[in-house]
This record gives sequence, structure tokens and C-alpha cells, in this order.
Amino acid sequence: MILIKDGGVATPLGFQAAGINIDIKGTGSTKKDYGLLISDVPCQVSATFTKNRVKAAPVIYDMKLLDEQSDFFGIIVNSGNANACTGQIGLEDTEKICKEAENILELPDKSLLMASTGVIGVRLPIDKMLQHINELVENLDDEDSNFSESILTTDTRPKKLAVLVETDNGSFVVGGVAKGAGMIAPDMATMLAFITTDVIIDKNAQDEALLLAVENSFNSITVDGDMSTNDSVFLFSNGMSGINVSHGNNYELFKEALNFVCSELAKMIVKDGEGATKFVTITVKNAKSYDDAKKCAFKIANSPLCKTMFFGSDPNWGRLMATIGASMIEFNEDDVDIYFDNLKYVANGTLIDPDLEDKAYEIMKKSEFAITIDLKAGNFSKTVYTCDFSYDYVKINADYRT
Amino acid sequence: MILIKDGGVATPLGFQAAGINIDIKGTGSTKKDYGLLISDVPCQVSATFTKNRVKAAPVIYDMKLLDEQSDFFGIIVNSGNANACTGQIGLEDTEKICKEAENILELPDKSLLMASTGVIGVRLPIDKMLQHINELVENLDDEDSNFSESILTTDTRPKKLAVLVETDNGSFVVGGVAKGAGMIAPDMATMLAFITTDVIIDKNAQDEALLLAVENSFNSITVDGDMSTNDSVFLFSNGMSGINVSHGNNYELFKEALNFVCSELAKMIVKDGEGATKFVTITVKNAKSYDDAKKCAFKIANSPLCKTMFFGSDPNWGRLMATIGASMIEFNEDDVDIYFDNLKYVANGTLIDPDLEDKAYEIMKKSEFAITIDLKAGNFSKTVYTCDFSYDYVKINADYRT
Repeated sequence: MILIKDGGVATPLGFQAAGINIDIKGTGSTKKDYGLLISDVPCQVSATFTKNRVKAAPVIYDMKLLDEQSDFFGIIVNSGNANACTGQIGLEDTEKICKEAENILELPDKSLLMASTGVIGVRLPIDKMLQHINELVENLDDEDSNFSESILTTDTRPKKLAVLVETDNGSFVVGGVAKGAGMIAPDMATMLAFITTDVIIDKNAQDEALLLAVENSFNSITVDGDMSTNDSVFLFSNGMSGINVSHGNNYELFKEALNFVCSELAKMIVKDGEGATKFVTITVKNAKSYDDAKKCAFKIANSPLCKTMFFGSDPNWGRLMATIGASMIEFNEDDVDIYFDNLKYVANGTLIDPDLEDKAYEIMKKSEFAITIDLKAGNFSKTVYTCDFSYDYVKINADYRT
Repeated sequence: MILIKDGGVATPLGFQAAGINIDIKGTGSTKKDYGLLISDVPCQVSATFTKNRVKAAPVIYDMKLLDEQSDFFGIIVNSGNANACTGQIGLEDTEKICKEAENILELPDKSLLMASTGVIGVRLPIDKMLQHINELVENLDDEDSNFSESILTTDTRPKKLAVLVETDNGSFVVGGVAKGAGMIAPDMATMLAFITTDVIIDKNAQDEALLLAVENSFNSITVDGDMSTNDSVFLFSNGMSGINVSHGNNYELFKEALNFVCSELAKMIVKDGEGATKFVTITVKNAKSYDDAKKCAFKIANSPLCKTMFFGSDPNWGRLMATIGASMIEFNEDDVDIYFDNLKYVANGTLIDPDLEDKAYEIMKKSEFAITIDLKAGNFSKTVYTCDFSYDYVKINADYRT
């Protein structure tokens, strides 16, 4: 597996992308906020969506289409407006934009999907969006820096990468672009990810590979534990490499590449979390079940007490113990070991030596560190990624009409 | 029901309290940190404790004693050290302190309880604590300002009150003292509450009344959603008023007084939450079940996105809708009404009029306001109390060794 310099969603064979500014929020912003990702030939699409009971119009639209068919040519995206809590009109707007783009691109009906992110409860500027589809199409090229910029909200930088994988039969590419769990002050934004690949793959194998990759990447990160109305991950495969990865070693190579791309994008999201100053890897080892390990790891990753403690570089193991206990999983307090990076800090539920506190403090002062909890209650482990809670998190999310 | 001026746990007949400084943390602090609450005659005790799987030594000690018997003379308290994650020695320390106090006070074995709050994972200064029990006993009096101070950690003020209730047969008193969900930087503290009364009451009726009162008060508040190792609520009744409140109208009067005392103490805790600048009442109305109403109200009350929005006085109803959806309860997005105080802001899932935003902003600028969500999904309601997330929350919980 080779990392491709400046790679992204337009890197696999047959994909093009575009991103332009049309000032969707109407605030005079010059940031690119309208994008298009397209394949020369139909793609087989797998996707996962937010579990929030309140789903944005494009999510409802895409879920319905994906229930009916699995072949699409691409996706239209916008930032600055989530098209959520917009009722029937929001759905109609989504459909209008897709239909107009399908006409202009001379594609079959319902062959495009849509994803939005930004303010909730405001109707899309539909006329402006219909009017600029031509411009989007004219801007399509093999670079995806414009596309990756068009989906950003409070993100401070684009998130993209692509990898080349060699097989016995030739090579294939997996590329990806994501936007982070940030906010477009003062409104909720969301997490979006688009993965493209030029492999040939059975739909079931593709679905399975995406579910697994998402579980270990986008579903293993948290910035603030809040769930958005628009979270979506799409995987487009267009087969243009001619490499079939449905079975055997090729399937393993494909899953490995997909996991890598999703994990790297997920980590980029956390590192660019709102106000984040630290990237913290939380591993819960030897839990009684996978659910226990995951519940405990996320309880720590989402705890305001733990996250402010990360911000303050405070090796307060008591807070960790209390949070483990509050996760209500099965474990014995007197068995717990806690490591800060490779430093064993707590053994069998007790601080090994107060003198270790200074060493733990030095580890926590770094911009990246890991906390490992060994529960000694079973054989299941889970790693999640989180960031700290800083003054800037409060600032970004509290500032009214800035 | 009459509020008694400067009332507290020593106000009901036959109760005395004390609080002294012995510098439990060893930092040279002059704040009172060691307390005693005692009755002239044995009390019947009901109690509720933290559900955290990691329980502090005094919680384990008290739970065991309360399983075996229900009569106690009082309770010893300390702040500055939670006596949690201290293993067998922590339990032995608790027992030693109680035994020594029982000897000095010439009380039967195991007739005192204990409650601690403060830093986790550090052994109590046992010699100092044994040595100063005499001083505690010498300081007992009918004032409880010293006792209420002795349990505080990052609280900025004591929390106490007492009410007098007139019945057809005479009057009784219910008094209470609490400490808040604060931190003793940089370590986790906890919530403690002690309620005293001079009524006569059946044990079952007392247990039931306490459970109900706690559900609607201490279990209906949140500062940061983190659960401590030491949370405890105790109700001591010594019967000295001669008024039996086990049945009928007297029972109703007693429950009303107990609910009032617990609710007022709970609200004081939230108002004094770490860094809190706003007191927010969240009511979820017409949910399909009580569990749904409670889950939804707490999801909002604990959401960092909603809490920073309260801090910023930002009437961002989309964030509320997304959080309601994230609570995974049953409701229809198109039925939801949202009120800010009495202002109907969202009707049937849609903002009524963008011009209302300024009015909603004015409401949210106040130090106390209410948000009501009408789900129109059933007949169950729940009200919870919370505070905002401010810069000071981060500051209080992040500062290392300050």
C-alpha cells in the first residue's frame, strides 16, 4: 500500500471532482461551499448514515434511493446549510437539485446523490444552487482540493488522502475526503466522508467492508458526543481498474486499504476537532465483551471531566477510575491497570508510586498521547480517538452571531 | 409549610451539628473540612447512593450497615478526600473513625455512618482525624453553618434550609444540607445531602418518600453528566416531635415538605455548578413514556452543544431538534413544539417566525430561563435542571495543581 501524494477522491481511475463558491449562507463568504463528485461510468455505492431520529432531507433522500438501487454516477455536496428540519420543501429542494444536475450531465434519472452540512432549520438557497450547476460541471477535474474545501464548515483544513494497492493482477486505488465534527458558529454542522475506488467488487462484500471500516474509524471517534442530523459515509466503486477484489487475498488487500483510508480521515477529523489542542487515543483492553470495551472507551472519550483533564495535562487517575465505574460495565476495581503511553501508572486499582505523577504529566503535555485501561475482565478490546475540551470549544460553540 | 430562617439539619428537634478545620488535604487550607451531625436519640435512616460501579469506602461501609440495621445516631463527614479507590485500608480507616467517635460519644457500636468527598485515590489522614474527634464533639451545637461548610469542595457557598409543617396534631420540621457537584481542583468531588426530621414514620413509608423525593430532585439535576464515587443522600428521622406521619394527610404533608427541601437543595447545587452562569429548567412534555421524557430531557441537559449554546444565549432551535433526535426516543419531528419561557418559538417542527429570534435571545440572556419541548407523543413529562458550560467550567477542571 503506497500513499499517493496529494491524493483524494478524484485519484482513482474515472473520477472527477469540483468545488466552487456560491455563498450559500448569504453572508458574503468566499469559501468554496458547493461541490460535485462524479464518475465516468456508473458506480456501485454503499453508505452508512446518522442514527439520529431527526435526519436531514438529503439523508432521507439518499436512504430511499439506496434502498431501491445501488448504482449512481456521483454526489452533489454543499456546506453552510444542512437542509435539516426543513420538512417536505427540503426534500423537494434536494430532488430538484439532483434532477437539474442529472439533466445537465445527461445522466439517467436518480443517478446522483446529495449531502449537505451546516445550519439546521433553514431552507437551501434553491435558485442560486440550480443556477450554478453548470459552473460546477465546468469546473470538474482530477484535482480534488476544491471539492474537499467545499464541504468544510468550522474545519480549519481539508482532509483527504489516497492509497495505491498492488495486487497479483495489477493495482487499484482507494481515495477519500472528509469534513469534521465541527460547527458553523452558531449552528451545528456534521461529519461527512466520501470514499472512491476503481475496484470491481460484489455489493455484499462492499457493504461488509464499509461497515467494518466505519466501525473502526468514523464510529470510533468523538469530539463532543453529540450526534448530527447529517452524518454520512459513502463508498463509490466504479470498477475502472479492472481489478476484482470480491474474494480471497484481493478482498483482504481492499479491506486493509479501505480501513486505512477511513482511519486516517477519522483521525484527521478528531485532530481538527473544535478547539482541540490534543489528540488522545483511548484503548480499553481485556473487557468482558466488545460492547463493554466500547462503552467504557467512549464514556472516557466523552466525559467533560476527562476531556478537561486532558486539556490541563492533569494525570488524575481517580477521575479515570470514576468514569470507568460510571460506564456501568462489568469489571473489578482491584484489577484495573492504567497506562499513559507506555508508562504503567496504576496497577490493580492503585497508583503505583506518587513519584510517577511527574512522568505522567510530561506525557500528557504532548499534543498526542494514549491512555490504555486494562480491565482484566475478558478478551475484548476497543480503541477510540478523542480530543480535549478547551476554552476554544466553548468559545466556538457559544459565540452568538459572530 | 413555613421556611425557617437560617434553618438546616440542626433545626429539627434533638439534632446537633459541628464543623471544624483540620486541614485534611494538608495544603494549609483554613476551610472547615471535618463535620459531625448527631441526634439525642436514635434515628431511623433511609439512604440512596451512587450507582457508579466504583464506590468510595464510606459508601461501601454505610451500605453494608444499612443492610443490617436502620437505626443510627448520626454521621461523620469530611471534605478534601473522597476515600475512594483506597482498597481495604480505606474501609478500615472509615471503621476506625466511626468506632472512635462512638467511644467518645458513648454510643453503641456501629451507630454512626460516614460520608466523604474530595480527591480520589488518596488515603485519609487517619491519625489527624482520630485525634480531632474530641474537638468535633466539643463544637456540637444547634447552628449548622459550620457543618454545612465542612462538606464543601469547589462549592462557592453553603446550601441549607429547613421548613416547619403544621398538622392537626402539632408541627414537625424537615431540614437539609447539601454540597454540590463541584470539583476540588484537580480532583473529582461529589454530591452529598443530609436531611433531618423530627417526625415518627414507618421505615417503608420513609424509604418510599425518600426515593420519590430524590427522583424529582437530586436525580433530576446535572452539571456535567459525570457520576461520582461518593454521591449519597441520607434521611435521619428521630421522632422527637411526636408527630406520626406514616399515613394519610400527615404522610402527604411530610412528602410535600421532603420534596420541597430536596428540590431546593438540588436547585442550589445546579446554581452553584462549576463555572455556571445560567440556571436552565428543561421540561419534556407529552412523551410516550416517563423513560422517554427523562432520557430526552437529560440528553439536552448534558449535551455540550446545548450547554455552550445556553452560555452564548443562542436560540439555536436546530441544535435542540438534533439533540432530541439523538436521544433516540419515539417522536415525530413534525409534531414538536419548543417554548423558551412562555414564548412559543417552534411549532410542529418549524421555526414560527425568524423575527422571534430576538425575543428568544432576550430570554436566554437572563440568568434563569426554561425550555419546554412538547413532543405530542403521549402523556408523560419530566423536568430536569441544568446549568451552562462556560469558560470557567474548563478552567476549574483543567487547571493542573493550582
